[in-house]
Amino acid sequence: MLSSKKKYIVNSSSGIKAQIQFADQKQEFNKRPTKIGRRSLSRSISQSSTDSYSSAASYTDSSDDETSPRDKQQKNSKGSSDFCVKNIKQAEFGRREIEIAEQEMPALMALRKRAQGEKPLAGAKIVGCTHITAQTAVLMETLGALGAQCRWAACNIYSTLNEVAAALAESGFPVFAWKGESEDDFWWCIDRCVNVEGWQPNMILDDGGDLTHWIYKKYPNMFKKIKGIVEESVTGVHRLYQLSKAGKLCVPAMNVNDSVTKQKFDNLYCCRESILDGLKRTTDMMFGGKQVVVCGYGEVGKGCCAALKAMGSIVYVTEIDPICALQACMDGFRLVKLNEVIRQVDIVITCTGNKNVVTREHLDRMKNSCIVCNMGHSNTEIDVASLRTPELTWERVRSQVDHVIWPDGKRIVLLAEGRLLNLSCSTVPTFVLSITATTQALALIELYNAPEGRYKQDVYLLPKKMDEYVASLHLPTFDAHLTELTDEQAKYLGLNKNGPFKPNYYRY
Amino acid sequence: MLSSKKKYIVNSSSGIKAQIQFADQKQEFNKRPTKIGRRSLSRSISQSSTDSYSSAASYTDSSDDETSPRDKQQKNSKGSSDFCVKNIKQAEFGRREIEIAEQEMPALMALRKRAQGEKPLAGAKIVGCTHITAQTAVLMETLGALGAQCRWAACNIYSTLNEVAAALAESGFPVFAWKGESEDDFWWCIDRCVNVEGWQPNMILDDGGDLTHWIYKKYPNMFKKIKGIVEESVTGVHRLYQLSKAGKLCVPAMNVNDSVTKQKFDNLYCCRESILDGLKRTTDMMFGGKQVVVCGYGEVGKGCCAALKAMGSIVYVTEIDPICALQACMDGFRLVKLNEVIRQVDIVITCTGNKNVVTREHLDRMKNSCIVCNMGHSNTEIDVASLRTPELTWERVRSQVDHVIWPDGKRIVLLAEGRLLNLSCSTVPTFVLSITATTQALALIELYNAPEGRYKQDVYLLPKKMDEYVASLHLPTFDAHLTELTDEQAKYLGLNKNGPFKPNYYRY
Amino acid sequence: MLSSKKKYIVNSSSGIKAQIQFADQKQEFNKRPTKIGRRSLSRSISQSSTDSYSSAASYTDSSDDETSPRDKQQKNSKGSSDFCVKNIKQAEFGRREIEIAEQEMPALMALRKRAQGEKPLAGAKIVGCTHITAQTAVLMETLGALGAQCRWAACNIYSTLNEVAAALAESGFPVFAWKGESEDDFWWCIDRCVNVEGWQPNMILDDGGDLTHWIYKKYPNMFKKIKGIVEESVTGVHRLYQLSKAGKLCVPAMNVNDSVTKQKFDNLYCCRESILDGLKRTTDMMFGGKQVVVCGYGEVGKGCCAALKAMGSIVYVTEIDPICALQACMDGFRLVKLNEVIRQVDIVITCTGNKNVVTREHLDRMKNSCIVCNMGHSNTEIDVASLRTPELTWERVRSQVDHVIWPDGKRIVLLAEGRLLNLSCSTVPTFVLSITATTQALALIELYNAPEGRYKQDVYLLPKKMDEYVASLHLPTFDAHLTELTDEQAKYLGLNKNGPFKPNYYRY
Amino acid sequence: MLSSKKKYIVNSSSGIKAQIQFADQKQEFNKRPTKIGRRSLSRSISQSSTDSYSSAASYTDSSDDETSPRDKQQKNSKGSSDFCVKNIKQAEFGRREIEIAEQEMPALMALRKRAQGEKPLAGAKIVGCTHITAQTAVLMETLGALGAQCRWAACNIYSTLNEVAAALAESGFPVFAWKGESEDDFWWCIDRCVNVEGWQPNMILDDGGDLTHWIYKKYPNMFKKIKGIVEESVTGVHRLYQLSKAGKLCVPAMNVNDSVTKQKFDNLYCCRESILDGLKRTTDMMFGGKQVVVCGYGEVGKGCCAALKAMGSIVYVTEIDPICALQACMDGFRLVKLNEVIRQVDIVITCTGNKNVVTREHLDRMKNSCIVCNMGHSNTEIDVASLRTPELTWERVRSQVDHVIWPDGKRIVLLAEGRLLNLSCSTVPTFVLSITATTQALALIELYNAPEGRYKQDVYLLPKKMDEYVASLHLPTFDAHLTELTDEQAKYLGLNKNGPFKPNYYRY
Repeated sequence: MLSSKKKYIVNSSSGIKAQIQFADQKQEFNKRPTKIGRRSLSRSISQSSTDSYSSAASYTDSSDDETSPRDKQQKNSKGSSDFCVKNIKQAEFGRREIEIAEQEMPALMALRKRAQGEKPLAGAKIVGCTHITAQTAVLMETLGALGAQCRWAACNIYSTLNEVAAALAESGFPVFAWKGESEDDFWWCIDRCVNVEGWQPNMILDDGGDLTHWIYKKYPNMFKKIKGIVEESVTGVHRLYQLSKAGKLCVPAMNVNDSVTKQKFDNLYCCRESILDGLKRTTDMMFGGKQVVVCGYGEVGKGCCAALKAMGSIVYVTEIDPICALQACMDGFRLVKLNEVIRQVDIVITCTGNKNVVTREHLDRMKNSCIVCNMGHSNTEIDVASLRTPELTWERVRSQVDHVIWPDGKRIVLLAEGRLLNLSCSTVPTFVLSITATTQALALIELYNAPEGRYKQDVYLLPKKMDEYVASLHLPTFDAHLTELTDEQAKYLGLNKNGPFKPNYYRY
Repeated sequence: MLSSKKKYIVNSSSGIKAQIQFADQKQEFNKRPTKIGRRSLSRSISQSSTDSYSSAASYTDSSDDETSPRDKQQKNSKGSSDFCVKNIKQAEFGRREIEIAEQEMPALMALRKRAQGEKPLAGAKIVGCTHITAQTAVLMETLGALGAQCRWAACNIYSTLNEVAAALAESGFPVFAWKGESEDDFWWCIDRCVNVEGWQPNMILDDGGDLTHWIYKKYPNMFKKIKGIVEESVTGVHRLYQLSKAGKLCVPAMNVNDSVTKQKFDNLYCCRESILDGLKRTTDMMFGGKQVVVCGYGEVGKGCCAALKAMGSIVYVTEIDPICALQACMDGFRLVKLNEVIRQVDIVITCTGNKNVVTREHLDRMKNSCIVCNMGHSNTEIDVASLRTPELTWERVRSQVDHVIWPDGKRIVLLAEGRLLNLSCSTVPTFVLSITATTQALALIELYNAPEGRYKQDVYLLPKKMDEYVASLHLPTFDAHLTELTDEQAKYLGLNKNGPFKPNYYRY
Repeated sequence: MLSSKKKYIVNSSSGIKAQIQFADQKQEFNKRPTKIGRRSLSRSISQSSTDSYSSAASYTDSSDDETSPRDKQQKNSKGSSDFCVKNIKQAEFGRREIEIAEQEMPALMALRKRAQGEKPLAGAKIVGCTHITAQTAVLMETLGALGAQCRWAACNIYSTLNEVAAALAESGFPVFAWKGESEDDFWWCIDRCVNVEGWQPNMILDDGGDLTHWIYKKYPNMFKKIKGIVEESVTGVHRLYQLSKAGKLCVPAMNVNDSVTKQKFDNLYCCRESILDGLKRTTDMMFGGKQVVVCGYGEVGKGCCAALKAMGSIVYVTEIDPICALQACMDGFRLVKLNEVIRQVDIVITCTGNKNVVTREHLDRMKNSCIVCNMGHSNTEIDVASLRTPELTWERVRSQVDHVIWPDGKRIVLLAEGRLLNLSCSTVPTFVLSITATTQALALIELYNAPEGRYKQDVYLLPKKMDEYVASLHLPTFDAHLTELTDEQAKYLGLNKNGPFKPNYYRY
Repeated sequence: MLSSKKKYIVNSSSGIKAQIQFADQKQEFNKRPTKIGRRSLSRSISQSSTDSYSSAASYTDSSDDETSPRDKQQKNSKGSSDFCVKNIKQAEFGRREIEIAEQEMPALMALRKRAQGEKPLAGAKIVGCTHITAQTAVLMETLGALGAQCRWAACNIYSTLNEVAAALAESGFPVFAWKGESEDDFWWCIDRCVNVEGWQPNMILDDGGDLTHWIYKKYPNMFKKIKGIVEESVTGVHRLYQLSKAGKLCVPAMNVNDSVTKQKFDNLYCCRESILDGLKRTTDMMFGGKQVVVCGYGEVGKGCCAALKAMGSIVYVTEIDPICALQACMDGFRLVKLNEVIRQVDIVITCTGNKNVVTREHLDRMKNSCIVCNMGHSNTEIDVASLRTPELTWERVRSQVDHVIWPDGKRIVLLAEGRLLNLSCSTVPTFVLSITATTQALALIELYNAPEGRYKQDVYLLPKKMDEYVASLHLPTFDAHLTELTDEQAKYLGLNKNGPFKPNYYRY
C-alpha cells in the first residue's frame, strides 16, 4: 500500500530477492527522526507490529511508585539481576496472562513440541526489540525452547505490560522494558540488550528498526557475526529497503510484514472484527441503518466494509485506484467522492495510508454527531491538527473519545484523536498475533539455518512454502482437514505434494 | 492456479517481463494434439476465453441448409466476397445483437470516441482468431474505428453465432467462420485469414494459440513483420511460455489472461453469479438449506461459496493449499476432506483445476439425487469416464442433465457431463466480456505503439497502469466517482497521480 | 398484505375462526368476472396457487393436433374412459416427471407411508380444481393412498402439463384438463368432475374459487354432503370471506394460504431465489454493482433485497408502512421515494400488492436500459397500459422480454409485460410446492375427520399444530434434528411437548 | 416466547383486548417472591426493561461515602428536598449524560416539540418505577414537557446512575433512587413516591410490577383515581395477565412489551450487535472460523446467528419448534441436537427462554476453552448451579469472566455466570432504548386520553397504529423517506392513508 516504484526480482529458488526503490527517500536512515517524530512514526507502524492492549492492561499497577526502574535494585527468585522491569513481584500475574495467551497460540506450541528432539535455534543468540506482551512472551519462550538465547527490549515506550515483563524476568529472560519509559530510557534499554560482556547477538528480531539502527550506529562491527535481521513493521521494512538501495545493508534481512497470512490476518480478517469492536467500546452506537463512508478499499477497507454491511449499515466507499474501486462496486458499495456524502454520513472511517484524507473542510461540513475515526496505517489521515483552533471546543467525554464542538453547537465525535482505532480502542485477538509470532519464529529459523549463499545482503520475503507452513500450523485450531494431492494429481499439476502450491504472483 | 515453478522478472519500467518455467513440459508446441484432444482442450480453456452462448443463440437458424459455406457463392450488399459465413442474409439479426452488446460494453465505446481524433491503430493489420459473438463484433468494430484492418477466424468450431458473422461480413469485415465447422474447415478458415494476396498481418490476436501455431508452422517468415501477439487463454499462454522457454518465441507476446481485472471478473465475480444460474437452469433446485461441498477455494471456489452461503446453503470446502484453507475457515466454511461429507451433501462442485478430484469411489458413496458439477478449468475434475460402465444406466433428462442410475436405484444428477457448468448451462454477462475485450484492445495498442526495445521476444503481463485503465473505463457503468490524489498526497505516497497505484506484488 | 379492515376472532381451541371484512367489496361473488377479467385475475392469484412452468414444459407436444380433446375417443390401458386429456399416449413421459417430483416431496411420501395402516381419508370423495402439474399429481396420488377418491379439473386454461394429465388418467384418475382450454372447455371440465352419475363429492380442494363457485351456482344441494372446502389462493380466500360475511358460506372452509410455512416459503425464501433466476434467464445481466430499487419491503421485498444485496447490487427500498420501513433501514437499505432514485437505478422491482406503483411518469424518467419487473401479487403494479401509446415502440427481443423505445432512442427493458416475473420467467422449486401440497393434504384430513362442531360455517386458518407438523415433515430433507423438550422443561414453559410451541400472535 | 395456551380476543377498534390464560399459574401475585428470588427475577426481566450500564457508569463515584442517602439532608439549588439521591452535587455530570442521550432519542424530542401547543398529559400525575438512567431521564423530562407531574423510584437496586438521579433531582423531579439500595431501601423509595401528602397518582409506569404490587398491597384505594398502568417487562406483564385472569385487575393495563418495534429492536436487531460486543469485551476472541452452537432460533437466536455467520463463524442451531427449525435450515444453519456438536464447538450460546438447556453433562463434554454464555431471557438456561461442586475450580479471570476448571485441567469460560450476556457485558444502544421509551410515552398518552369505555379492566397490546407511529418517529434518524399512498391506491388496498397498514396477524 505504501510505495510504488519498486523493482522486484524474484528468483526461482525458494527465497525471494526483492530490491525496492522508493520514490521519496529524503529521510535517510541515519538522520534520526526527532523525538516526537519518531514516536508518532513508531505509533504508525501499522497493525502488524502493535500489541493488543488487552483488557489485562487494566490491572496494571497504578501505584505511585515513581522511582525509575533503572534506579532500583532488582533480583528474581533465582538470584539473577540481568534485567530491568517495573516490579518483579508482579511476575505471577504476568505468568497467568502468558498461560492464557498460550492457549490461543497453537502454532508456537506445536513448534515447541517438534523442537523437543532437535533444536533448530541451538546456538542462536537473538536480540529482540518488540512490544512486550503476553504474546511476545510466548514467542520468546518458544525461541528459548528451540535452543536460542534471547535478550529483549521494548520497541514502544508505552506498550509494555509490566506484569509480563516481570514474568519473563522471573523465568530468567534478560528483559529491559517498562511502561512509560523516557526517550533516554528507551535507548538505555536497547543498549543493555546489546552491549553485554561476553555475549554477542547473531540474530536480530526488530519491530520498527530502532534496534537495527542502534547497532548500525554504535556497534557496526557486531554485524560480522550477525546472520540476519527479521523485521516486522512497515516502517522498519521501509528503512531496510533504503539501506539496501544505498548498498549499506550488510546482512540478509527478512521482511515478514508482507507474507500472505500476516497481511490477510492483520488487515482483512482482523479489521473486519475490530472496526465493530472499536466503535462499540467507544460510542455504544447501533450500526443498523447508519450511513458510513469508508475511505480506501484495500484489505483494511474491505474488512471494515464487509463488517458494517453485515451489521446493517449503508456503506459508501472512496478510492483513488480504479481496480480497487471496481472491486468496491462489485461488492455492492457505491463509489463516491468524499464531498458527495460528507453531509449525510453518520460515520467516517479512513483506511488509506494517505494523509489529509479528511480535511478541516470536510469536518466543517459533517452533520451533528458524526463519528470520525481512523483504521489506516498512521495518524495522518484525518487532519486533526486543523481542529486545534480557538473557535472549536474540545470536550473529552470518555477515554479515547473527544467531542469537538463548533460555535453553532454542532459536535463531531473524534475517536482516539485520529490515531489507529483498532489499536487504541479495541483489542487484537491473540490468534492474529499468533500468526505474526509464528512467522517471526520461522523467519529466524530460516535465516539462522540457511546454507551459505542462499541469502545475500538484501531484503527477502518469506519463502512461500514457509508462509504455507505458518497457515498449516493454524489449521488445527479450526479442526480443519487439508486434502493431500495424490502422486498422479501432483504430477498433473506439476507441483510438489508438500507445496508450494501457488506461483509467487498468486493473489489469494 | 496452473503452474508453480515460475521465474518472474519484473523490471522497473511499465512492462513486466516474465520468464516462466513450467514443471511439466512434455507437451511440445509443435506436437499437435489429436483432433479430439485439441477440441476438448479448446473446450477446457477456462472461463477466460470462452463465449457467452447467450440466449440469442436460440434463434440460430435450424434450417436444413446442408451446403458447406465453403461451397457457396457469397457476396455482401457492397459486392465484397472476401468472407465466408453461413448465411449473409442473417446480417440484420446479427446487427441487432451487436447493438445490444454495445450497450453493455461502455469501455470499448469510450475508446471509439477517444479515437475520433487520433487513430492509435492506424496502419495495424490484425489477424484474429477468437469466439465469434456479438461481443467480439463490438471489439472488432472498435479496432476498426481505431484505425486497424482486421481479418478474423473462429477459435472454436461450435461457438460462432452465424448472424453475428453475417453482420460483420455485411459491414465489410473479412470473416471466415460458421457454427459447426469441420476440423478441416477450421484450418481452412484460419488460412484464409492469413494467406492473402497483398495483405500481411502485423499483429496477432489469438485465443487458444491455434492461429499462432498455424503461422509458426506454415508462414514463419510472416513474424518478421509482426509486432506482437496478444493471447487470451490459459492454454495459449501456456504454449507461449513454452515457446519462450525453448527460445523459439520470435516476437513479444502479451499475456492478458492474468491481468487483475480479468482474473477477478472471469473468476470471482462471474462465478459468484453463474454457479446459481447454472444450477437453477438445469435443476430448478432450491438452494436454501442444501448441503454443498465445494472442492477448491481459489477465486472460482470463493465465488461459488459466497453465492451459495448467501442463498442459505450450508457449504463445506476442500483444499490442498493451507493458505487458501485458512481463508476458507476465516470466511466461515468448514474445511473437510471430501470423504468426510460425501455421504451427506446434496451438491458437489469442483473448482480445483486438478484431475480426478471426484472419483468413482466418491460417486458410489453419494446419496440419492446428489447433484455433481464442475466449475473448474477443464473437464478432468470429475472422473466421468468411470461412470461409463455397464452396471450404471444413463438417462438424459434435460439438455445438459443426466441421471446416472445405480443398480439399487440410487441416481446422481450429473450436469454438462462434467464439463464447465458456467459455460454450458449459464451465460457469461456481456459486462465480463467487455472487460476481456477492452484488455485485448489495450494490449494491441500497447504492443503496436511500444517504442523499439520496450518489449523483447518474451511473454509480458499487461502493464499495471493499463490494467488500471481498463478498470477506470468500466467505472462509469456504475456511476462510480474516483477520487484524485492531491499533489501533496501523491508526493507523500510517492505515487504518480495517474497511477500505477500499487506495487506489482499487491494482491487486491 | 392485501386487506386491512379485518376482524379476527381467534378462539382458544385449535382452530381459528376468522371473520374478515373487506374494504372494497364491489365485486360480488356471483357477478362473474368477464372472461378477460377472470383470466387476468386467475393469472394474478399470487405465488401461492401457481405452478412451476418447469422446464419440463418445453417438450410439451407442439404437434399440430387441432382436434379438441372433447371430441376424441379416449381410453386408458385399463379400459377406462372417465377422463379427458390431450393425449393419453404421453402418459409415460408424464410418469417420469411425477417420479422426479416425488423425490423432492418428502412430506407427502412420508404421509403415504404412515397411511399404510390407517386410511385417514377412507370414504373421502374429493373434487379438485388446481394447476395440473407433476407436483399436483404427487398430491393426488397421495390423497388416493390415504383412501380418497378424487376427480380433478384444471384451475387455469394454460397451466396444465398434458403429459402429467395423461399419466394420471392412465393410472385411473378421472382428470379433465389440457393446455389451451377455451373458456367453454374450462367450465365443461369442471362440470365433468362434479356432475357424475352415482358419485357425489364430500370434500372440495379449490385454487381460485372457480370450482366452489360452480357448485354454488349449479348444484347448491351438493353442499349438504360436503364436509368442507380447502382453498389455496388469495383470490379464492377473498371470495370465501365475502361469502362468510354475507352469511352464505354453508360449510367450513380452510384458508391454507396464510399458514406460516406456506407464507414464508412462497414469499421470502422462494423469492430470494427466483428474483435472481428470473432476471438472469431473461436478461443475462450481471448483478454486481447494479443499482436496484425494490418497491415494498414485505416478505417478497425482503427476499428480493437480501438476494440482490448478497450478489453485490446496491439496493434502495420504498415503503408506505413505517414499521417495514424501519426494518429496511436496520437491514441496511436506504429508504427512499421512488422519484429520488428513478433516474439512476438499473433495475426497478415492484413487490407491493398495490397498483400503479410505477407510473408512466416514472417510466419516462428512467435511464436507458433500465430493467422493470414485477414480483408482487398481480399485474397492476407497473402501469404497463400507459406504455401502449403511439410514440413508443415495442420490440420483443426474447420471450418475456420487451424493449420499449422512446422517441429519443431511450429504451427500457420490460419483463413479462409487468406480470409476475417469478411465475413467468423462473421456476418454482418443487420443494416449495411440496410445502403447499402437504398443507392442502393435512387441511383435507383435518376437515374430513374433525368431530362435529369443531368447525362452523366459517373460514379457518390451519391450526398452528398442523402448521408445525408440515414443517416437521420437511426437516428430514435437510437432515435436521429437532430437540425434544424434557418433561421438566415443558412444565416450566407451560407447553405440551408435542406443540403447539408458540402463541398465535407469534411473528416468526 | 413465554407462554402458549393463550386466548386472544382482538376487537375491531384500535385497541386490542387480550385475555391470556397461562399454563402454570402457581405463582400468585400477592405471594411475594423471596428476596433472592425477586432479585433474580428482576435480573431476568428480559432485554426490554433493562438498562444500558453504559460506559458512563465507570466514573460513578467510588467515594467511600458510606452514609445512607436516607440519612442525609438533601436540598437542590432551588431549595427543594422532595427527593433522595446519592449525591446531589453530581447533577452536572448527569446532565451531560442526559444531553448525550437526547441526541439519540429523536422521537421523544419530536414529541416534546409537538407538545409545545397542546399538552396531552396535562393533569397527569405519573408515578414511575424503572431503571434510572440517562435515557429514562429523557423520558421523564419529556413526560414533564407533555404536561405531566412525575414521581420516580428505581426498579432495580443496582442499576441507578447516581449522577442522572442527581440531575433529575436538581431540575425538580422527585426521584428516590441510588445505586446499591438495600431491600428495605427499595420499598422505602417506592413508598416515598406514592405516599405523598396532597398528591395522588393517576397513572402508573412500571417495569417489573413491583410498584403496581406495592399499591395493590398498601394503597388499594388509590386505584379509584388511576386511569391505567403501562407495563414494560415480561415479568410484569405476566403478573398483570394473572391478575386479569383472577378478575383482580381493576384498571386497564397496556402491555408495551409485545409491540412490533420493541420486540424487533430489543431482540433481533439489538442482539445482532450485542452478541459480538459482549463476546469481544469479555474474551477478545476472534470470531472467524470459530464453531458456535446457538440454542434457540427465535428473534434473539436469529440475531446472534446472523451476526456470527457474517463474521465468519460456523454456526449450528438447536430448536424445539419445527417452524423455527425450518427457518434455520433455509437461513443456512445446520439444525442439530446439542449433543451432536457439544464436543467440537468453541462457543455455546443459549437463547431459548427455557431452563437447563445446557446441563452439567453438556458442560462435562465441552472441549477445553469452550466459551459458554446466555442471551436468553433469564439465568436459568445454563445449569450454573451444577458447576458449584468441589471437584471443579472456579477462577475469576476478568470482570464477568470465570474459568471453571476440571480436575484434568480442562477449563470452560463462563460469561456473566450464566446471566444475560448482553446486559452484563455489553451496552444497549440508546437508539433501542429510545424506541422503548417512546412506546411507553405513547401508551401513557393513549390510556390517559382514551374516552370512557375504550379500555376495560384488562391487558391490552399497543394499537397497531401507535406501533407504526413509534416507527415513523424514528425514521428521520436514518434520513428515511416514507412513500404516501395516493387516494386511488388507498382505495384499491382498502386502507386508510395514515394506517394502520397491516392486519393484526401480520408477521413482519
